[in-house]
Amino acid sequence: MMTHLSVWAQSDSLIFRQLANQIMLHGNCYDDLRYLCKKIGNRISGSESCLKAINWGAETLTQAGADKVWLQPAEVPYWVRGAESLKVRLPNEKEWRSIRMLSIGNSEGTNGQILEAPIVMVEDYAALKRLTNDEIRGKIIFFNHRFPQEIINSFEAYGKAGSYRWTAPNIASSRGALAVIIRSLSTGDDDEPHTGSMRYADSVRKIPAVAIGNHSADRLEEACNKGVVKAQLQSHCTMRGTKMSFNVIGELKGSDYPNQLVVVGGHLDSWDVGEGAQDDGAGIVQSIEVLRTFKALKIRPKRTLRVVLFTNEENGLRGGIAYADSSKAHNEHPIFALESDAGGFSPRGFSMSMPLAKRKYLQSYRQLFLPYGVYDFEQHGSGADISPLEKMGVPCAELMPDPQRYFDYHHTANDVFEIVNHRELKLGAVVMSQLVYLITQYGL
Amino acid sequence: MMTHLSVWAQSDSLIFRQLANQIMLHGNCYDDLRYLCKKIGNRISGSESCLKAINWGAETLTQAGADKVWLQPAEVPYWVRGAESLKVRLPNEKEWRSIRMLSIGNSEGTNGQILEAPIVMVEDYAALKRLTNDEIRGKIIFFNHRFPQEIINSFEAYGKAGSYRWTAPNIASSRGALAVIIRSLSTGDDDEPHTGSMRYADSVRKIPAVAIGNHSADRLEEACNKGVVKAQLQSHCTMRGTKMSFNVIGELKGSDYPNQLVVVGGHLDSWDVGEGAQDDGAGIVQSIEVLRTFKALKIRPKRTLRVVLFTNEENGLRGGIAYADSSKAHNEHPIFALESDAGGFSPRGFSMSMPLAKRKYLQSYRQLFLPYGVYDFEQHGSGADISPLEKMGVPCAELMPDPQRYFDYHHTANDVFEIVNHRELKLGAVVMSQLVYLITQYGL
Repeated sequence: MMTHLSVWAQSDSLIFRQLANQIMLHGNCYDDLRYLCKKIGNRISGSESCLKAINWGAETLTQAGADKVWLQPAEVPYWVRGAESLKVRLPNEKEWRSIRMLSIGNSEGTNGQILEAPIVMVEDYAALKRLTNDEIRGKIIFFNHRFPQEIINSFEAYGKAGSYRWTAPNIASSRGALAVIIRSLSTGDDDEPHTGSMRYADSVRKIPAVAIGNHSADRLEEACNKGVVKAQLQSHCTMRGTKMSFNVIGELKGSDYPNQLVVVGGHLDSWDVGEGAQDDGAGIVQSIEVLRTFKALKIRPKRTLRVVLFTNEENGLRGGIAYADSSKAHNEHPIFALESDAGGFSPRGFSMSMPLAKRKYLQSYRQLFLPYGVYDFEQHGSGADISPLEKMGVPCAELMPDPQRYFDYHHTANDVFEIVNHRELKLGAVVMSQLVYLITQYGL
Repeated sequence: MMTHLSVWAQSDSLIFRQLANQIMLHGNCYDDLRYLCKKIGNRISGSESCLKAINWGAETLTQAGADKVWLQPAEVPYWVRGAESLKVRLPNEKEWRSIRMLSIGNSEGTNGQILEAPIVMVEDYAALKRLTNDEIRGKIIFFNHRFPQEIINSFEAYGKAGSYRWTAPNIASSRGALAVIIRSLSTGDDDEPHTGSMRYADSVRKIPAVAIGNHSADRLEEACNKGVVKAQLQSHCTMRGTKMSFNVIGELKGSDYPNQLVVVGGHLDSWDVGEGAQDDGAGIVQSIEVLRTFKALKIRPKRTLRVVLFTNEENGLRGGIAYADSSKAHNEHPIFALESDAGGFSPRGFSMSMPLAKRKYLQSYRQLFLPYGVYDFEQHGSGADISPLEKMGVPCAELMPDPQRYFDYHHTANDVFEIVNHRELKLGAVVMSQLVYLITQYGL
């Protein structure tokens, strides 16, 4: 005799299969990503190309079949890089050698001047602490902190190493350093520098902060161990006030409970290098694919499916904040939010931030997801863009793709369309559409 | 109070961590793969480069710390491709257009002659069956069978579509066709032709068989739907008798039960295009890494760890057969064999062919493997090279990496070092070393 639950499960598993067939055979997310990467390219908040991406997002959501598409304004910081270079002179050498580098996002540059100073290398904060102020003052501090490659979940490793990008400049500045060079937050066995966000503390002088690739860091480490290395840094990056930007929102109105909102999204902005393919073009085109697939299969959700393409995740989170503020101001009832912002790799699970009962309810569907490679419902956490919703108490989740390759490409010139695999990208969209299906139909 | 099992589990989990740290931080398999791919390159059985790879394998196993390394002879077929081309003339056109193609491995060519004939397109065997002999005789049959992209486990999809490479030429020949063109067994959204093995039935004329990429197949399909397309095929491929080849074997003698053998391996030969990076350079360097890691961590296995680099998996399986024959002849006692021949992607599980009790025993370690992304111990099957051992009743298993990207590259010119990710490759070696550790210590 079948229980009610297994009757559900049977029809759900058929719908799961239909969603998968539709996306794997007829999905458009890979072609969408090609367009976003190749025709628009990278798109830092406040830039012209970010506005282009916003218009493209609105058009694409409309063509995907949204009932309604609109833009939601958000004032965003506008950081501009400009030309930049880093040269070093090794012990007992006369020539200056160029090193590939990227200024860290939000940092100030040298205002076009050449900043020349000796490098002091430290492995971590503890090593910096052991130095006297005299040893630090007037120097360029090289934080040679290695990304912990032995940690299998690279996002956990990123979390641990992250402060060497976020806050090392403040710590060095407070001790009188002139600038900071960091070993990139990178798993790459290569020389790619990785940019990303930092934030100046109010109390410190805003010193320049730049990142270099692993191979350059290895060579610089070797040189610093031999004697005094001098550096010349020249850069123009600066914060140029704010600009108007927009979240793009599209929805399929729910048939039974239109006021209950199921949010799915990623972020449309990217860093100003590469094409923002894995971060987060992938999440954008997957989110749009969820709506397109519902429409293609004529699934009218019982609750409203709302796709949000957030702006300014990378260096301000103003899009996510604007969305949550508006949601609150309009007394909206979001029952769940899902983000995809960990790359378009093969999905492995969903991390969740929600009360235990809801968590257990979603875990009860684990068997249905297994044939699609999704097995891990044990992790905690959700995405940055929906974190303001999470703080308001909305149950949140994030797609957890395989984490091995992400930090080879993250925030680099190599984050381009070609590194995204069509089947992996689509499979991520499949499992997102499956989870969203369950919640639009049965609530949470 | 701790049970005996949980005491085991605790120390095992520490060893698991040590194995992972060693390989993720200090492993050499990625550098080994670079050498194999870039300095030796592709290495079809019987070729000079296959012999080079065999010598390299023996040296590398020796340097990795094997107690003993030796070569085991196997007579292998020697298939040679030579120059080849395929041109088509579309309906109402005068010009011949070149199509990228690869003859299917083991197939005979046109002996350098131009074979010109009209193309008859069929979607599958059922469609071919509906044609009269007159419609087939003297024609080139285009098997336009699509790789089933909707099947999430691409190895399952490959199994279903595989007969269009393995046996379609025989079926077409038996009906009087002159040659066969197949749509490649490919998940690729590209124009790469995929070679691979076929086998002529004794009863049929050996007609040429070639594969074209998905994009060319799409265009050819379109043209065939419009009218008669003619093809000109010219090729030189042929079977040139046999050559001597060798399995490379290296071992760490077991301290307590030296006669109990735990075999781990992959295949050293590859197709004659690309660099045989995922297929199966990855499995080779991972297998060597297992031994190197035991040695580096001073783990002396209780049972003998034997690494086998098999020859001739791709077009004859003579290496696997020679190994099993020798094992039998010498009354060896292999208690377990593990193969890695599904690519150096992030590991997800181990498929197993063994009695239920042993299967359940290995499944009981699932929790220990979970932190390394390995969760699936439910699948059945093992690797081709160890299938002769499996037939002798040896418990066998195969590493199951993420299957999404494999058939984009499989048997193509694109199967090169650059498509292998260093962390994914190493993580595969980690979980292989963990499984091998358990079995060398506790038996099976």
